[in-house]
Amino acid sequence: MPDTPLAPGSTIGILGGGQLGRMLAMAAARLGLKTHIYCPDTDCTAAQVADAATFAGYEDEDALAAFAAAVDVVTYEFENVPMATATLLAQDVPVRPGAKALGVSQDRLTEKNFLRGLGIDTAPFADVANLQDLEQAIATIGCPAILKTRRLGYDGKGQARINAPGDAQAAWNAVASQPSILEGFVDFEAEISVIVARATDGTVAAYDPARNAHANHILSVSAVPSGFAASVEARARALAEQVVAELDYVGVMGVEMFVRPGSNDLVVNEFAPRVHNSGHWTIEACVISQFEQHMRAVAGWPLGSPHRHSDAEMTNLIGDDVNDWHRLAAIPGNGLHLYGKGDARPGRKMGHVTRLSPRR
Amino acid sequence: MPDTPLAPGSTIGILGGGQLGRMLAMAAARLGLKTHIYCPDTDCTAAQVADAATFAGYEDEDALAAFAAAVDVVTYEFENVPMATATLLAQDVPVRPGAKALGVSQDRLTEKNFLRGLGIDTAPFADVANLQDLEQAIATIGCPAILKTRRLGYDGKGQARINAPGDAQAAWNAVASQPSILEGFVDFEAEISVIVARATDGTVAAYDPARNAHANHILSVSAVPSGFAASVEARARALAEQVVAELDYVGVMGVEMFVRPGSNDLVVNEFAPRVHNSGHWTIEACVISQFEQHMRAVAGWPLGSPHRHSDAEMTNLIGDDVNDWHRLAAIPGNGLHLYGKGDARPGRKMGHVTRLSPRR
Repeated sequence: MPDTPLAPGSTIGILGGGQLGRMLAMAAARLGLKTHIYCPDTDCTAAQVADAATFAGYEDEDALAAFAAAVDVVTYEFENVPMATATLLAQDVPVRPGAKALGVSQDRLTEKNFLRGLGIDTAPFADVANLQDLEQAIATIGCPAILKTRRLGYDGKGQARINAPGDAQAAWNAVASQPSILEGFVDFEAEISVIVARATDGTVAAYDPARNAHANHILSVSAVPSGFAASVEARARALAEQVVAELDYVGVMGVEMFVRPGSNDLVVNEFAPRVHNSGHWTIEACVISQFEQHMRAVAGWPLGSPHRHSDAEMTNLIGDDVNDWHRLAAIPGNGLHLYGKGDARPGRKMGHVTRLSPRR
Repeated sequence: MPDTPLAPGSTIGILGGGQLGRMLAMAAARLGLKTHIYCPDTDCTAAQVADAATFAGYEDEDALAAFAAAVDVVTYEFENVPMATATLLAQDVPVRPGAKALGVSQDRLTEKNFLRGLGIDTAPFADVANLQDLEQAIATIGCPAILKTRRLGYDGKGQARINAPGDAQAAWNAVASQPSILEGFVDFEAEISVIVARATDGTVAAYDPARNAHANHILSVSAVPSGFAASVEARARALAEQVVAELDYVGVMGVEMFVRPGSNDLVVNEFAPRVHNSGHWTIEACVISQFEQHMRAVAGWPLGSPHRHSDAEMTNLIGDDVNDWHRLAAIPGNGLHLYGKGDARPGRKMGHVTRLSPRR
């Protein structure tokens, strides 16, 4: 794969049309790079701000071939891009991040085994292919635990909590008998995440770790600085840098970790081979946002500095929260982002607000 | 004109398709507002990032009527929108800023008389309708002086310098015998400019004044803070606020002023009824940029805070400068903006770079 940088005016193809694709397209425009969204949904929010859009399914080989011919590089804004789609596109055009990262991150079992192979701590886990496996895993890992499908889960979907061995059958039904893993709980003080980027030349740049809070399994607030000791933050950065280097990764990745009480060591929860909700604060608090950083990386450009000039707190607007837009817009200091989505369904990410304060 | 705020999802029509329209469209997208560019040039850079575009002339009444029907409010990114175009559109849809600001700022003579009428200092000037007027004006104002067409000049175009009375005929030819004004020179230490916004409810918010440097009559660098005393900056803000209040203005305006040596008082050079090149630093140095501020104002939203969290220096990339994009992208801390224009002609604004530093 050549790492000659794409000239301004080149076109980056983006698989997926949600708010991450939208913010990627806006960041590309700032650099004079064009974007072409590929998305099955004609009403997708990213197409509103992109130069071009293809509305077709991820299995539509003709549409994919035309898309590959129209763009100079392909990236994606969600990790569940079908591997066959990525493989087909990669015959004609670079796909960044590449197939290795996609394959590992699409499968919770593969991801956990990959991390263990690097000597990185994870929650205790076991492969669950059937009800018998599940019962065995509960006996080994103990309760409470959580059953998660190996594929296609996010924001708490495809998950079932197990409080006692007797919950096994109900949990197995809840995940629709899909291949899954059982995960033990980790005793942790907080979740932190690192947004890390790797360029085509192997250069790596990590933003400061953010401390994250969730509500109903959905990210609610991300704050920087994290409040943890410099040694914890350095370890978090080092783990994230290790993961991208190991995957020969190109682009931005979000790595979620748990901080154990009274320990400098960290447990990696999961990583997403894309820009990440917990990095939205970089739009206001850094000159180069995670979105621009990803566009730079996939275009073969030099990475920008991840320097943070301000402290920041980002709060998601979920579902109905967005109806409060006028009040939120009127609060001095609020950086308000609305994603241009139509229907404020419960649990749907509709926008976010970032507030800056001087660096402590 | 109702000042009910436009709901997210509404469409702002923008007359003009250059980099200012492009950055306005990107700022609107952040708020979930759509944009529709109206521009005669099918290759215009703003249409690349907008939701919709109409490519038609400013005199095309059918196209204008369809445009008015497709949008919820109209604004513009250049001050030379034909008054007939604005008047026609205003029959169907609010046009912000309104006809008064457009009329005053399109004509250097009217603009200067307006400022004088407010008790605001300007350079000495005289109305020049013919060669005889010009000779008379040179006798009154003295040399050196500069002859400027009343209409349609910018970035040094439509101007001729007069070093001695004998230059009158050549200067008159240089401005093609157009109605003009003769302007005397002002002895000044520096040009500063204020980006000021006024909302539909009359609220006013001014950003910190920037100190500007020009090369070949084109803005080269804008820096904040300006380095002038707080009293000078306060006076600059007050003048800008007076101008927008007097014009019952809605939107962002750029007001250029000269600082006289050893004086707290200021001479207003000119104002532009639009976002302004000397305010591009607000993208990085403020949570709410001048572009978002303008979109908020014309949409009837509350203004954002003009607070500046960092010091900043913005440098334009003119013509060939842009060919250096790869080196500029690699310099840590550079906020690089490329406008997506094709041809790097001499004098053409192709992009800009903003560098932040901690507030002094």
